[in-house]
Amino acid sequence: MSETPSWWRDEPLRFSPILEAAIAEFGAKGYHGTPVRDIARRVGVTVPALYYHHANKEAILLALLDGVTRDFADRARAADADAGDDPVRRLQQVVESIASGMTSRPELAALQSELGYLSGENRERQTAVRDEIEAVLTAVISDGVGSGDFVVDDLAETVRAVLGMLQWIPTWYQPGGPSSPADIALRYARLATRLVGVNDRARR
Amino acid sequence: MSETPSWWRDEPLRFSPILEAAIAEFGAKGYHGTPVRDIARRVGVTVPALYYHHANKEAILLALLDGVTRDFADRARAADADAGDDPVRRLQQVVESIASGMTSRPELAALQSELGYLSGENRERQTAVRDEIEAVLTAVISDGVGSGDFVVDDLAETVRAVLGMLQWIPTWYQPGGPSSPADIALRYARLATRLVGVNDRARR
Repeated sequence: MSETPSWWRDEPLRFSPILEAAIAEFGAKGYHGTPVRDIARRVGVTVPALYYHHANKEAILLALLDGVTRDFADRARAADADAGDDPVRRLQQVVESIASGMTSRPELAALQSELGYLSGENRERQTAVRDEIEAVLTAVISDGVGSGDFVVDDLAETVRAVLGMLQWIPTWYQPGGPSSPADIALRYARLATRLVGVNDRARR
Repeated sequence: MSETPSWWRDEPLRFSPILEAAIAEFGAKGYHGTPVRDIARRVGVTVPALYYHHANKEAILLALLDGVTRDFADRARAADADAGDDPVRRLQQVVESIASGMTSRPELAALQSELGYLSGENRERQTAVRDEIEAVLTAVISDGVGSGDFVVDDLAETVRAVLGMLQWIPTWYQPGGPSSPADIALRYARLATRLVGVNDRARR
């Protein structure tokens, strides 16, 4: 691509100074191992000043997860809209948009595993945004099945398999490692097309 | 299969009464939200009696993760050994063995996300057993590439994609849901063969 498309996460997602301090502290000590006062100290505010912006530690986690998941959902939709009608291209761009989010700030993507610690209402809010991402992939794969481009056993399970392999990226990705974010995104786009039954062996 | 093979996790993995109490408490309140005294109360022992068996809460988590990961590694190896020489069958059986572990006690598989909270030495011990599982899959896929049955862009990345989609199962699997563990295992076996470039569209 000569010009970076809007759905490609090139510049890492950025947050307010308090949330950036929280990301650094959670990265070093884990969400559960981080006292709120350490976040306040890192950003140079008092604990009451921090509580003015975020009611408690869970609210900080929620603000981060909301920002990250919303970014994934918006870019997935933009990647789909930008792809035209070809189901293979639509699937590849949506997968590339998600992969680029996983590699741009892996420490943020890894926070998703703390989702279970959110209380009921907050967890539902997060789940709703995740459902948007799943809905984009479901529509793309369903259209491809309808047009005969894709062959799947079970639509929902195939969507989950695509998301599962993408969600795993932050557990092994090392910035500056042998594969660039663009390499990884292209490989996962190809793996995803394989999962929907596109025979790409002749294309090598 | 008329007789259940050794690598299929049919009976759920079981632990000592203390560890079973810990699984129940972690499932209800999360690892970080569970005080050790609640585990002791549930199993009906005093906290000092519990500490006689496990030095602290991290030691309890480690005992659980060790048991689960060891079980996955042993069954993956047995599934491979039992499959003969055909790379497709080897891959399918190894994937089925892992999938059956993910669905047999999903609350245990979900504990893997707490791995980052283990201290250095304990985390390394866990990582070593995980590497065994990765090594089984790597050997199977590498052999399939060598024989010309499989075509992959990047061996390590393909292995991680297979593991990623399998690791995601406990986040959505509901016991008693529409798909049985055997259905899920067969579908993931097919998805994995697609990831390595086996064209199965004609086989439907």
